[in-house]
Amino acid sequence: GTTLDAFKQTLRFPPATCTFACLANDEAHWIDKQVTLHGYLGNRRVANKSLTFAELHDMSLGSVVQIVSTATKHADSICLPHQLLQDLSHHTPVVVEGTVRGRQAPKTGSAIKNGAPASGKPVVITGMEIKLENIVPLNTFPENLIVTDETVFGPDQRHLQIKHDKSIRNALRFRSKAARFIRDHLADEHGFEEFETPLLFKSTPEGAREFLVPTRNPGLAYALPQSPQQYKQILMASGIPRYMQIARCFRDEDLRADRQPEFTQVDLEMAFATGEDVMRVVENTVRALWTKLLNIDNLPLPFPRLTYEQAMSRYGSDKPDIRLGSEITKIDYMLPVDLISKIGPHADPLVDVMKIPVSKDANSTRNFVSTFMDSPEAQPFIQNPDGQPGIFIVDSRKPLRGLQPFGFEAAEQVEEMLTLEDGDLVVLQARKNAPFAGGSTPVGNLRLALHKAAVKQGLLPAPKGFAFTWITDFPLFSPNNDSDPGQGGSAGISSTHHPFTAPKTPEDVDLLLTDPLQAKADHYDLVLNGVELGGGSRRIHNAEMQAFILRDILKMSDVRMRDFGHLIEVFRAGCAPHAGMALGFDRLVAVMLGRESVRDVIAFPKSGSGEDLLVKSPTRVTEEQLKTYHLKIRDG
Amino acid sequence: GTTLDAFKQTLRFPPATCTFACLANDEAHWIDKQVTLHGYLGNRRVANKSLTFAELHDMSLGSVVQIVSTATKHADSICLPHQLLQDLSHHTPVVVEGTVRGRQAPKTGSAIKNGAPASGKPVVITGMEIKLENIVPLNTFPENLIVTDETVFGPDQRHLQIKHDKSIRNALRFRSKAARFIRDHLADEHGFEEFETPLLFKSTPEGAREFLVPTRNPGLAYALPQSPQQYKQILMASGIPRYMQIARCFRDEDLRADRQPEFTQVDLEMAFATGEDVMRVVENTVRALWTKLLNIDNLPLPFPRLTYEQAMSRYGSDKPDIRLGSEITKIDYMLPVDLISKIGPHADPLVDVMKIPVSKDANSTRNFVSTFMDSPEAQPFIQNPDGQPGIFIVDSRKPLRGLQPFGFEAAEQVEEMLTLEDGDLVVLQARKNAPFAGGSTPVGNLRLALHKAAVKQGLLPAPKGFAFTWITDFPLFSPNNDSDPGQGGSAGISSTHHPFTAPKTPEDVDLLLTDPLQAKADHYDLVLNGVELGGGSRRIHNAEMQAFILRDILKMSDVRMRDFGHLIEVFRAGCAPHAGMALGFDRLVAVMLGRESVRDVIAFPKSGSGEDLLVKSPTRVTEEQLKTYHLKIRDG
Repeated sequence: GTTLDAFKQTLRFPPATCTFACLANDEAHWIDKQVTLHGYLGNRRVANKSLTFAELHDMSLGSVVQIVSTATKHADSICLPHQLLQDLSHHTPVVVEGTVRGRQAPKTGSAIKNGAPASGKPVVITGMEIKLENIVPLNTFPENLIVTDETVFGPDQRHLQIKHDKSIRNALRFRSKAARFIRDHLADEHGFEEFETPLLFKSTPEGAREFLVPTRNPGLAYALPQSPQQYKQILMASGIPRYMQIARCFRDEDLRADRQPEFTQVDLEMAFATGEDVMRVVENTVRALWTKLLNIDNLPLPFPRLTYEQAMSRYGSDKPDIRLGSEITKIDYMLPVDLISKIGPHADPLVDVMKIPVSKDANSTRNFVSTFMDSPEAQPFIQNPDGQPGIFIVDSRKPLRGLQPFGFEAAEQVEEMLTLEDGDLVVLQARKNAPFAGGSTPVGNLRLALHKAAVKQGLLPAPKGFAFTWITDFPLFSPNNDSDPGQGGSAGISSTHHPFTAPKTPEDVDLLLTDPLQAKADHYDLVLNGVELGGGSRRIHNAEMQAFILRDILKMSDVRMRDFGHLIEVFRAGCAPHAGMALGFDRLVAVMLGRESVRDVIAFPKSGSGEDLLVKSPTRVTEEQLKTYHLKIRDG
Repeated sequence: GTTLDAFKQTLRFPPATCTFACLANDEAHWIDKQVTLHGYLGNRRVANKSLTFAELHDMSLGSVVQIVSTATKHADSICLPHQLLQDLSHHTPVVVEGTVRGRQAPKTGSAIKNGAPASGKPVVITGMEIKLENIVPLNTFPENLIVTDETVFGPDQRHLQIKHDKSIRNALRFRSKAARFIRDHLADEHGFEEFETPLLFKSTPEGAREFLVPTRNPGLAYALPQSPQQYKQILMASGIPRYMQIARCFRDEDLRADRQPEFTQVDLEMAFATGEDVMRVVENTVRALWTKLLNIDNLPLPFPRLTYEQAMSRYGSDKPDIRLGSEITKIDYMLPVDLISKIGPHADPLVDVMKIPVSKDANSTRNFVSTFMDSPEAQPFIQNPDGQPGIFIVDSRKPLRGLQPFGFEAAEQVEEMLTLEDGDLVVLQARKNAPFAGGSTPVGNLRLALHKAAVKQGLLPAPKGFAFTWITDFPLFSPNNDSDPGQGGSAGISSTHHPFTAPKTPEDVDLLLTDPLQAKADHYDLVLNGVELGGGSRRIHNAEMQAFILRDILKMSDVRMRDFGHLIEVFRAGCAPHAGMALGFDRLVAVMLGRESVRDVIAFPKSGSGEDLLVKSPTRVTEEQLKTYHLKIRDG
């Protein structure tokens, strides 16, 4: 009864006369006009028994107009809205009918302020107010739910967070604008068209673990794609010259730092193109995006480049934040045996050195170091099997300015090489004499950790600006390891990125026969401020070559090979050379907005354990569903 | 060795000087210039031993330029390209280097023709040709693969079909343009922003069967969404005023006529809006789309409307093709008992009548009817348990013009009502005296089948143009049936569309308590030429009302109710009224292009059994994968 009656009262409501923006844009036109407005009830101020002011927020929660209500003793019909305005809960969605009046500033200080809104606050329409004639509540708002600017909502209250935290709403809007700009730019400036590729794909051992989608055909399943890689290459073989897609991708990985099981990529591929062509298009698009959405038009083109080898040796990372400075240098002159033995177990290690100018004052640097070394953040470095870092503080009051353990000659050379000043932190780190592998070295991680700690303690300024770098010349193959599943060949090596990546030069092709781990890939990562925005590569476009890589280099079984049979078949029919790239769109938007986490730019992100805590997914499969898909839960 | 060498030769190739469009746009500029072009080798004509002409197709296969090659006896360096041009397979991707020359028309009739290209043929650049200096093949093309304009490729050769069937490529490009236009229009004209919603959702009994995505947490699974319905409603509750998304959706249904297990929707939702608001936005967008992409700007606004009741009674379908005419009328005067008993088993049936003006000649119509009735298409109508159709042919040479079985009075009234002419087909169809349910009636299906057959035989013109209709006032609930799973309540009725649909009027709200099957929904379908483009509704925005529908009307168990708990919780926090719609994007594009099947406008469609025959998905799950997801295949 009550439920139905309440609903019936909200079923018919008059359309709005105009938006708030329309009101604000032509104040003179609206004065004395009768209007109907839709919005959410905001703060109220009861001036006296017969005078109440209230904020009405527009439906996008972006602007506010003042409602003023006066009670007339003898007219019940007017008293009812007046009473309602006072009684309705804050945040109630309402229809307001009234007359527009020129605004009279409230006599006392009010929650509604004139002038420009504070950042993150709604725009206040100052030149007018609405004299209330009728107000209709369209829903209820729980009285016990108190929302202030400081209220922090949990992930199970994502709806309240989006509604009441303007920064999240703005981030989602920014994301929408960014996607539109990228689509338009790639189409209008570079001739790309968007092609949708299937999400019900099949399991192929490309790299990451794939989610399966069982079918009602017993034992058969689709897999959700980790990227549109194969379909986009098929499009290249199908005579499509420029493909792009803002595509949903899936990886069933343990959710390491800030990863999501589903994520969005700006995916593109170009026929008759090399990696250079792709890098040029991406640079140009990124630069235009920064200009359009961030009003930053001074990104240097082309973006600077580092080879993987350079990035690893100079920054100890394949996604270096080059803004931090503190380049790492290999010490290739003699260090005292004493020192060598202190900084690690290896008899003949490589030793890296870097300087971090934490402060001008040696004592302050000393305090910083001892605080850092006692913190949990330092533990991985202390426990590094290649030896813990040797940390020195430049101090003119000490012998050899604090570098005595280096011995006279080495200290002098380090001084010269790093141009040291008092208070500088000098870090030595030993490592095994072996080629770089993986994404970072301990000294590279230490560089980041020390910088972060120094920024946190106010010793160094937080890095600013946007520093893009291309990383090129990755190894085509890497030795198998425990954390990456690889492609399931029996060669003991796996494709560093995926098995469709082309070798970079004819010399790298030759290395396939003699020393494949030495072969470089025509792969390129785009790195911004220490974050990998995405990567791409020239692809193998030739059937025999692709088969050779899978069969003769990775040593896949015939069964595994068959998973890629379609691709090899497709290349056979005159496929043009092609290259492409994928940018992580969530991460791109997060970095543009300076957000720490991609969760801040995804409407409904999953938790670290892959759950949506608002809708409560995933859920328990029913026996009926299991039967439908011919499945049983396995015990234990 | 050979494989690697062949690949090495294609690894480095020079960039193209310009596109073909760029050449064609400024012919004068390019004459005598040295150019490098990328493209696919086309037809060749060997004029004599030392003169060969060849087509070079650009990389988008949209335009052609002529290559001319002459052999010089004494210069081996020139002979090699000349020989290569003759030897390379048709369709080989190549780099061509040469000099642009003013075009001299070939002496004999050539495969390359001047002037405007035939429809579907590439544009021929007529004012110039390229004198070949070098040609580099970038891949091979199988000599035994012969492609002509007539070659039909199977679904396992989708790449060849896309490459060699221009109509497919054009459809995919059209699709890309349509998506962009819709996004831009909804943003710029109506203030929508695009929000991405999760594809890893959870199973809720909304209607269709959902694909499951098992997680590594034993017994827990995500489900792929059949639409972004719930998340978009959550966005409405989150203060987002206008949501849109071109969204991938999934239904694990038996693939009835032209359905895909994954499909794309143009999905939208509006806060503080009624169904009328949504219909206005959609009409406006569709009209603008037709103007922009089809150059048709005379669609009548607003689109005509029929209630479900009207559509079912007048066209026997809830997605009527109103272009066909032949409206169905109920005969509500007396028919002879003889006739009644012949057209069906019911003693007191409702009898529908319609006229199809198949020809002006009774004999020709008679032939048509007997052919049709002998065809397999007629079987369902002959076997209709409500009785087979009574078919009469208007023929002035016969008593009562062939309507004698009607009796004098009824014949006269039918004559008058249908304004009959010789050769008209008059169809009587009995049905049970019961309210309409489902999507069509036998007489409605017969109307379509007879029209189709008449068009096929050239008796009636194929229907032309675009006729939009809104269908409104659907029943909110329908009795459970075997084919639709419903929402799993125990009431014996299910939501006709989904359980979030609002009743249309306060009177319909009242009917919930007394006769829910009589209550009308504020649901609207957009129908075009007999195809349902999509549907939408005003939603229930109020927590108590939503709970009432699920618990008290559908009689869901507490367990089922809990599946929707998040939605009810979200509505509780001041959710504004809202309404929305989803248009099937695949179907929309297919109808715009006059294609029979959505497969013609999807790059990689699934077969009728849900397979991608090119990549060969789905595949057999491995034991290892089953273990990872704690699953076993169930026997039998």
